[in-house]
Amino acid sequence: MSRTADEVAATVVALAIERGLTVATAESLTAGLVAATLADTPGASGMLQGGVVAYQNSVKAAVLGVSAELLDAVGSVDAEVAVAMADGARRACGADVGVSTTGVAGPLPHDGKPVGTVFIGVATSIGTTAHAYSFHGDRPAIRAQANVAALERLLSALSAPTYHA
Amino acid sequence: MSRTADEVAATVVALAIERGLTVATAESLTAGLVAATLADTPGASGMLQGGVVAYQNSVKAAVLGVSAELLDAVGSVDAEVAVAMADGARRACGADVGVSTTGVAGPLPHDGKPVGTVFIGVATSIGTTAHAYSFHGDRPAIRAQANVAALERLLSALSAPTYHA
Repeated sequence: MSRTADEVAATVVALAIERGLTVATAESLTAGLVAATLADTPGASGMLQGGVVAYQNSVKAAVLGVSAELLDAVGSVDAEVAVAMADGARRACGADVGVSTTGVAGPLPHDGKPVGTVFIGVATSIGTTAHAYSFHGDRPAIRAQANVAALERLLSALSAPTYHA
Repeated sequence: MSRTADEVAATVVALAIERGLTVATAESLTAGLVAATLADTPGASGMLQGGVVAYQNSVKAAVLGVSAELLDAVGSVDAEVAVAMADGARRACGADVGVSTTGVAGPLPHDGKPVGTVFIGVATSIGTTAHAYSFHGDRPAIRAQANVAALERLLSALSAPTYHA
């Protein structure tokens, strides 16, 4: 049985506070759900700086600093865009860790990518990575799975041994 | 019986698309819930530009342009801050209408304001207003009521006869 978003969020909040690390979000597909899930946990104000809901590409470019050329070339659902969004969240909000979501919730494919395609980016002081997923289900189901995946990636980044140093 | 957030959001999305108006959010108390609720409605990509989760004051200042002097003087839970946040969302995301939330979800009072104090700001081309609320209940209940209130204020702004011109 996989954990619920609230359960993962509670672990993320506790671990971030324990390590003295702050978090920022950049959400396209999930549109604020990751930040709201974190904020539902009491104590979240001790680690959540804030975030950007970058639903349109213009916001990804203007607020998060994602290259407009990149967005024109590859569209919004792309690993490199997820990386740039996570970097942008970290920088814009002055956080230790940035996490991003971009993907296709459906009902129709987008930018040539099938419904359920999701990229999660995670930015830390040691670098930024993106992970690709293919989720099944309807629009709320895909968004809910992306929310849990983003929280789990965040947990993994906060658990990294490099942060012990 | 009051309407659910999803029901109000569906009406907001339909009305914004009908009028060709775009929306941006600036959320402190609700931390992304308003944007996520709008995005849950199919067709939201036709009207939702994006938003800012301005959980910490540093993000309210850096990303939304809220005056640091104002935040120092009055704290974050204030009508004037709600106005500046809504203006900032509208400007940062290039939207026709900006909506903001700031308040005290509890469990403890904040900046001298009691739990349940909420301000909702709405910015349009004709000006910006803020409305004060006092909600009862626990943390999730206060946030849920603020979400509905923000969506209803948004609906009211989108319904304003001035937009007919």
